[in-house]
Amino acid sequence: MNQDSTSSAKLPKTARGRRTREKLLGAAEEEFGARGYHAVAINDITRRAGVALGTFYVYFESKEEIYRALVPYMSSRVRSYIAERIADVPDRLTAERKGLEAFLEFVREHKGLYRIISEAEFVANDKFVEHYRVFAKAYRDNLANAGDRGQIREGDYEVWSWAIMGMAVFLGMRYGEGDRDADPERIADVVVDLMAHGIGRPAENEEQN
Amino acid sequence: MNQDSTSSAKLPKTARGRRTREKLLGAAEEEFGARGYHAVAINDITRRAGVALGTFYVYFESKEEIYRALVPYMSSRVRSYIAERIADVPDRLTAERKGLEAFLEFVREHKGLYRIISEAEFVANDKFVEHYRVFAKAYRDNLANAGDRGQIREGDYEVWSWAIMGMAVFLGMRYGEGDRDADPERIADVVVDLMAHGIGRPAENEEQN
Repeated sequence: MNQDSTSSAKLPKTARGRRTREKLLGAAEEEFGARGYHAVAINDITRRAGVALGTFYVYFESKEEIYRALVPYMSSRVRSYIAERIADVPDRLTAERKGLEAFLEFVREHKGLYRIISEAEFVANDKFVEHYRVFAKAYRDNLANAGDRGQIREGDYEVWSWAIMGMAVFLGMRYGEGDRDADPERIADVVVDLMAHGIGRPAENEEQN
Repeated sequence: MNQDSTSSAKLPKTARGRRTREKLLGAAEEEFGARGYHAVAINDITRRAGVALGTFYVYFESKEEIYRALVPYMSSRVRSYIAERIADVPDRLTAERKGLEAFLEFVREHKGLYRIISEAEFVANDKFVEHYRVFAKAYRDNLANAGDRGQIREGDYEVWSWAIMGMAVFLGMRYGEGDRDADPERIADVVVDLMAHGIGRPAENEEQN
């Protein structure tokens, strides 16, 4: 908790170094995700990564430091996975639908994601807070943009961004981590319909349901 | 994790016994909420409760056991705090508004709530899962009821319940735990407007925002 946020001093300068660092982070994802922070030793990570123990210390000073790096690493992987999937969508609500579908898929493919983020609250609290702040800010900007373009109505984008983020996280808990049979596309359809129209009864002249 | 869900064998039969057990749970809330599971000793709890160490063992077998009891205890306190506030409301959306307002207030008054529930994921995982399952089920039943009565439109109440629960939890994180200046009534208004109407643009003949 008393270290620099990214320990950028140790960020590798070569492509090979970046690959090794990624390999260590990938192994850390598997290990911490499966067994939790306290049960994992640096040894477990290097063994899984197929990297010598001494090499670990070229990139990270300690178990805590790789965990602190892992949180923003996972965070940015989620974001770029979603960004790729919504690159060509025509409007915000389609982006929400495709984005949620992608998010549910990502959660299923990365079984450790939730555990890593949740345990960060206790192991690397500032990284936990930063993770949600970064997501909320991106959401707020996207909503404000869509509001400006008339794709959604105007509103309190800050409140909305936390509400929508909460929906996504809990649906990921329910249908990504939990019930893996549910079709992500169907879930995303239901949620974006809720997000777009609300649960209130439509006006009589607007039978949209 | 290998114990009975409520260790009902030790539930006190007298009013005095119930008061002592409550006192211990209240002290446990303060201690675990402020410092986390691992940093707290049984001693800290009994000292804060003003109860002899031996008395602790009349009610709980271990630190783990009082933590396991604390999660459903907090869970039911949140629910009854909200239930009291929405007892006389005329419809579901008013219940959502008053309920969210009450929830934000509860989070502000119980600074340890989030930490206790979140840490339960690691310390008493089945209690963590149960907490959200119980909430989701109550939500689903309420939504289905409201749908039957025509207070809201019909939909996939299971998906909706997790989405709405997620909203509440994240707004509690943002405006209950975090920004304590924001007016709970205003936040609840914004959220229930979102919940009722969505973020989509209203039909032209229905300028509701």
